[in-house]
Amino acid sequence: MAIKVSIDASGGDCGIPVTVVAGIKALSVFSDLHLVFVGDINNIQAELDKNSDAQKFTDRFSITHASETVAMNESPSIALRKKKDSSMRVAINLVKEGTVDACVSAGNTGALMAISRFVLKTIKGIDRPAIMGRMPTMNGHTHMLDLGANVDSKPEALLEFAVMGSIAVKYTDNITSPTIGLLNIGEEEMKGNENIKKTSELLKASNLNYTGFVEGDDIYKGTVDLVVCDGFEGNVALKASEGVASMMGHYLKKSFNKNIFTKIIALVATPVLKDFKASLDPGKYNGASLLGLRGIVIKSHGGAGVDSFFQAIKEAYLEVNAKIIKKIESQVALELEATKS
Amino acid sequence: MAIKVSIDASGGDCGIPVTVVAGIKALSVFSDLHLVFVGDINNIQAELDKNSDAQKFTDRFSITHASETVAMNESPSIALRKKKDSSMRVAINLVKEGTVDACVSAGNTGALMAISRFVLKTIKGIDRPAIMGRMPTMNGHTHMLDLGANVDSKPEALLEFAVMGSIAVKYTDNITSPTIGLLNIGEEEMKGNENIKKTSELLKASNLNYTGFVEGDDIYKGTVDLVVCDGFEGNVALKASEGVASMMGHYLKKSFNKNIFTKIIALVATPVLKDFKASLDPGKYNGASLLGLRGIVIKSHGGAGVDSFFQAIKEAYLEVNAKIIKKIESQVALELEATKS
Repeated sequence: MAIKVSIDASGGDCGIPVTVVAGIKALSVFSDLHLVFVGDINNIQAELDKNSDAQKFTDRFSITHASETVAMNESPSIALRKKKDSSMRVAINLVKEGTVDACVSAGNTGALMAISRFVLKTIKGIDRPAIMGRMPTMNGHTHMLDLGANVDSKPEALLEFAVMGSIAVKYTDNITSPTIGLLNIGEEEMKGNENIKKTSELLKASNLNYTGFVEGDDIYKGTVDLVVCDGFEGNVALKASEGVASMMGHYLKKSFNKNIFTKIIALVATPVLKDFKASLDPGKYNGASLLGLRGIVIKSHGGAGVDSFFQAIKEAYLEVNAKIIKKIESQVALELEATKS
Repeated sequence: MAIKVSIDASGGDCGIPVTVVAGIKALSVFSDLHLVFVGDINNIQAELDKNSDAQKFTDRFSITHASETVAMNESPSIALRKKKDSSMRVAINLVKEGTVDACVSAGNTGALMAISRFVLKTIKGIDRPAIMGRMPTMNGHTHMLDLGANVDSKPEALLEFAVMGSIAVKYTDNITSPTIGLLNIGEEEMKGNENIKKTSELLKASNLNYTGFVEGDDIYKGTVDLVVCDGFEGNVALKASEGVASMMGHYLKKSFNKNIFTKIIALVATPVLKDFKASLDPGKYNGASLLGLRGIVIKSHGGAGVDSFFQAIKEAYLEVNAKIIKKIESQVALELEATKS
């Protein structure tokens, strides 16, 4: 069966020159993939006309015109209420109508969250969706949620994150029983707080493969397959990590740029530095899932390039293929049932 | 006037071979510094006997025997209640008695916090001390607190962190009016939570140089002189950052170790890599302050080497020299007065 995905073509820092080209690449990789590019029809057509590969897949993509674009810094509530014909809104509407199975956008996170939640609604038992992303580790990658959609999450909400994340990791990464860690701190008198302790009890009592507390450095050690945390902490960890990585890149460049000798060494070391850069390329892990919605919505980094946006489309493809929405719905229903009894 | 500091000589992963050697180095750098090494008198004397420099400073150090040591993984409450003659406890007692002006320890953070709080008590108006550390940035360094001593901090507590941190930064870094940022997240519908919004209002109404919200990546951009946050988030950010740095180091090494050619390139690049490593050496920023106590206590990394432990002693020296306790006391008293009126 064909897998159909809508692309918010105008979303992100670069828009159509990235999203459409990445889409054509995805069509060449996944033979059962069908795409709907949503945005200004003339601009999308112009990009397709420039793309020699596009001609091969004309039976597997279409264009849906949208007259507006959500700006990267636009207020989510304005985007939701005033821009009914934005490429983002129309791309999500296509999921709601069942025209496509998933939507991918590199647009404004807050707007994507607000519009997805309004249009698609959340799964019964889930109040707000959570954002799950892949993170590089010393031995591959791990997953983490929530990365910023929910603050002050209660133990019951953190348990739902674990349930949803576990299913997504199980089926997209083919791990029978993903190990789950709860983010905590260890450097003090009484570890964590009441909220964390209660969440840990709930996780222990569940059927999930919960292995206990993890600390910030465990994310990158790859201690577990899934790190569960509140969105405030998740977002702080993610941004701080990006900050450290940039700073280290800055100092590495500085050391190689110091004088004529170090510049020559930089030339010699180019292949090694390229290999190093490739091993940490954040684009490899692009494509965060908005879990908890009644439809698949994948958020790409705003600044994604073609290869990186391709990864986000691939994430959507994997989730559709794994039918994760139905699986999350039935698992959450089971949990709700168990709580009642 | 002499500046007197007690050293928990047995504390940390390495104990005496690091703490005593670093102490002698500090005596050679700061001519008005006097040290009291606290720990097993025979072991300390043996280390001093091996050290040729130690003979030059016999009039500026002494040894106070302590028969016990707090283990790195020991429960803080056991350390507090059962080990009354630990090197950590005795070193802190010396601050309480006024024999020394400050104490430096590389021991167990939780135990150091519990014992310091019990022995020294907190400044009037401060409930629990906060941990402030220096962090490297793209343009130098910044400071951050709390790094893990307080969870679920209320707006009033976060304001006190800002007051204490601002004074410490002002006088140890000689910055007339340190800029202060409040750690928040930006990637979602409604930024932050009620707690953060209320804290921001309190900071705006204060006399502090508050510049607004910062995100995790701003720590390493050096956007502000002082980042204020709850201890849970601060610890998560710190540990996640350490994790990323280790992972990047791991991949850099891996890229240079790939084959015989990359190993040769590594040899050529050695001076550059050394320079890079030096620019990010966490030892340069060793020495976190336990702010809010009625005495100066500096926490060194447990795994600190000689140069790194020296930095922690230097931090203690700077804080004593700047008389920060008296300054924090009077500033907090003013704030309390203002709240009452």
